[in-house]
Amino acid sequence: MSLSQLCYVPNMGMLALLGFAMIAAGQDHPAARAAREYRMSHERAIVDEFLSLLAIPNVASHAGDIARNVEHLQHLLAHRRIESQVLEVPNAPPVLYAEIRTPGATRTLMFYAHIDGQPVEPAQWQGSKPFTPVLKDRGGRVIALPEKFDPESRIYARSASDDKAPVMAMLAALDAMKAKGLALRSNLKFFFDGEEEAGSPNLRRYLEQYRDKLGADAWIFCDGPVHQSRKQQVVMGVRGVVGLNLTLYGAKRELHSGHYGNWAPNPLMMAAQLMASMRNEDGRILIPGFYDDVEPLSESEKQAVRNAPDIDAELKEELGLVRTEGNGKRIEELVNLPALNFRGMQAAGVGAQSRNVVPASTTISIDVRLVKGMDPQRVVDKFRQHLASQGYHVVTQEPDDAIRRKHPRICRLDAREGGYKAVRASMDLPISKEVIAAVKAARGDIVVLPTMGGSLPIAPIAEAFDKPVIIVPIANHDNNQHGHNENIRIQNLWDGIETLAALLNL
Amino acid sequence: MSLSQLCYVPNMGMLALLGFAMIAAGQDHPAARAAREYRMSHERAIVDEFLSLLAIPNVASHAGDIARNVEHLQHLLAHRRIESQVLEVPNAPPVLYAEIRTPGATRTLMFYAHIDGQPVEPAQWQGSKPFTPVLKDRGGRVIALPEKFDPESRIYARSASDDKAPVMAMLAALDAMKAKGLALRSNLKFFFDGEEEAGSPNLRRYLEQYRDKLGADAWIFCDGPVHQSRKQQVVMGVRGVVGLNLTLYGAKRELHSGHYGNWAPNPLMMAAQLMASMRNEDGRILIPGFYDDVEPLSESEKQAVRNAPDIDAELKEELGLVRTEGNGKRIEELVNLPALNFRGMQAAGVGAQSRNVVPASTTISIDVRLVKGMDPQRVVDKFRQHLASQGYHVVTQEPDDAIRRKHPRICRLDAREGGYKAVRASMDLPISKEVIAAVKAARGDIVVLPTMGGSLPIAPIAEAFDKPVIIVPIANHDNNQHGHNENIRIQNLWDGIETLAALLNL
Repeated sequence: MSLSQLCYVPNMGMLALLGFAMIAAGQDHPAARAAREYRMSHERAIVDEFLSLLAIPNVASHAGDIARNVEHLQHLLAHRRIESQVLEVPNAPPVLYAEIRTPGATRTLMFYAHIDGQPVEPAQWQGSKPFTPVLKDRGGRVIALPEKFDPESRIYARSASDDKAPVMAMLAALDAMKAKGLALRSNLKFFFDGEEEAGSPNLRRYLEQYRDKLGADAWIFCDGPVHQSRKQQVVMGVRGVVGLNLTLYGAKRELHSGHYGNWAPNPLMMAAQLMASMRNEDGRILIPGFYDDVEPLSESEKQAVRNAPDIDAELKEELGLVRTEGNGKRIEELVNLPALNFRGMQAAGVGAQSRNVVPASTTISIDVRLVKGMDPQRVVDKFRQHLASQGYHVVTQEPDDAIRRKHPRICRLDAREGGYKAVRASMDLPISKEVIAAVKAARGDIVVLPTMGGSLPIAPIAEAFDKPVIIVPIANHDNNQHGHNENIRIQNLWDGIETLAALLNL
Repeated sequence: MSLSQLCYVPNMGMLALLGFAMIAAGQDHPAARAAREYRMSHERAIVDEFLSLLAIPNVASHAGDIARNVEHLQHLLAHRRIESQVLEVPNAPPVLYAEIRTPGATRTLMFYAHIDGQPVEPAQWQGSKPFTPVLKDRGGRVIALPEKFDPESRIYARSASDDKAPVMAMLAALDAMKAKGLALRSNLKFFFDGEEEAGSPNLRRYLEQYRDKLGADAWIFCDGPVHQSRKQQVVMGVRGVVGLNLTLYGAKRELHSGHYGNWAPNPLMMAAQLMASMRNEDGRILIPGFYDDVEPLSESEKQAVRNAPDIDAELKEELGLVRTEGNGKRIEELVNLPALNFRGMQAAGVGAQSRNVVPASTTISIDVRLVKGMDPQRVVDKFRQHLASQGYHVVTQEPDDAIRRKHPRICRLDAREGGYKAVRASMDLPISKEVIAAVKAARGDIVVLPTMGGSLPIAPIAEAFDKPVIIVPIANHDNNQHGHNENIRIQNLWDGIETLAALLNL
């Protein structure tokens, strides 16, 4: 049975089974149980508050929008009498920091989420706009907000999943524990990042400048999706990432393809050759030395990967795929390898905007996912060396006439995104075991993995404090994260509140 | 010395030389001389009327805009007491037809120009907008319209060169001959096409439906640029063209590149491999059998190509190129071969719009230039066969789940543009000789070539009437035709009026 069938058209027997599983799961953990009871009588209020947060545009590159998100969230925290403070370093979006001191606590936990989102292309969204959140039923129709929500309905908005859902889940979990009179046991800190989707290039400066404030015995990262089997997961690390743009040049201006085609160098042709020299269709990276620094998984980590539910067949069905990259390897194995992804490309016009020109240039946008052992700067250097080996003169800005006169092939390499390393914490640390146990008690059958495929800016934290960073995501895997029509499945929001309650109650 | 230096910063000696050459050229032909005298005392009026035509948007796919251009042009003709008629066939943009009967004439000449233009991307235009024509001085600054124009100043607007300049030149040439009392000698007809930039897909239907009206002893095509040496050229044929869009598919939706990169097929990777299988960096087409139908040049045509001024070095300097495609062959040779041009490409976002996704699809836009002997439909078939040989299942619309379930590689082939064949008339026909002689008398040292690199919808005309079609373009070669910042150099407009006067006086 495909995942989409499981999600959208369960038969009655399965519904009963799921219902039973859900009730059974929360009962092992008092905070999760409190969260469920509270949520069931406050669904509409929780969603209303969530939508107020989603309605504020939050593209990471728009500093003013990030400031408005910070202000709104500060207001939501103040309403709960939680002290917060806007942290600032020069020329960077603000971070919102908050703290709850627990009398007698001997441990401090830091909860991380981010309030910025990926860029948006509103024209591509269907039936809604990125910052006008709507609820859609399981058939995809926009519907009015009810008092009680179908768990398979979804809220659509930029950051509905990535990453405002965990922010809302934290607030609701705290409300629930307070309402049910459950005492906290650790000191709690909160770090709401304002530029995660831009690669958190200033995180290191924040950690330095506010080192005293930001120390904790562990960071719990609430970002990313749950396992594609829809099971809650606890993940001990992430891939690193580095982004870059390559621009290849033909003539100084677009040329009529009839009068100059066959004579003027075609940048798209150059791009095709260059791309094929970098990677093959199975995802194997052909740039020399790319795998040199990779630190392989330990035996126990390999075992954890093998233990994860095999969801390849369901995913392929859901995504309309017969073939996958990786030569038949499972997705859990593949995300433990580095990946070179062509994330976008642009030259002149296509379709109705086609023009008969030889394009003047083309830009290839690339993100590289790193595994433990790889360094973002060394990776960029390998690209630079590879470009040179393919005959390209590498520049960092538009080539002028003098440069054009000297070099037959010119590539602009733009690697301003910085990037960060991969990190993995050991599953055997006491805090790792406690986190895994609490989430298991709250949510039943969970998946534990050494690494998630996505990247989070964990490396600077792990390096600054030498403390474990453990990832507990809550969003559905099919949330269109980073794309258009981003959404959160209501059941994932509900489950997330329970998961967060168990963690906040550690 | 580079062409751009020649155009923009001539030294005084050269200016004197050019001035002498210009005065000398027109004196051999009475109509050209009349045109020059008239123009010199009516520069501002000519430009004012020209700008009124350029201000009307004319993207070929916007039927309403084409109708407005027709209406305006009809008004300009009526003002000159020239009878015109809007021709129509179902579901096609209109054509404007006009006629001047000359008492006692035994010959009929048809003049062709088109009033539609290529699509526009207004954001890319610098200092002006596509349909708000402006005059810029030789330094590129927008300036007010003077009474007397610097011949090196330029008018910027979509279709300033391609192809409203010849329309304006015809009107001004007729005004000039009338003002100077010069009698016409042939019957003149005019065909103003409304969809040339869309490939004139309905031209054949127009030629059938209005066969009686459209017959002529020769068609003179006023479209395209003069030779890159800035010399007037007479061209006996054109390359054909066919356009297509290829869309390659990955997963049904964009996926997070961290969680799915390395596993989900990357359409840009597929595109790179496919593009590299179609063509190499020297422009050689690798699709099997692509050159099978090519009819080679005759010895005298090869000689004409060799006689053309060699402008490769100047062009490379002007366009900022060290390397060209074609393995060192001259541009005049290369445009006598078929060309496969990647004219545009698009997938997800680049630069500031980069998103960390595996794109769901990518579209490659292609135009193919055909030489004599090649058939557009057979060319599309060769693409289809090549796609199949590369493992692609070819569809003509978005693939549905059933198709996705069956095929590991899917390509949508969209070849709705139709296209047309290449045509070449003999240089030895009496009318060919007359045209060449008249243009020589009007303009001095000219270039005669068997084929231009660009494409014009000549094939349906040549096939319908079996009469020669001769191309006499007037626009400057560096006019940014089809791109942004399209322009006409004022001197080319002035020269064009003289050239057209000589032809209208045949």
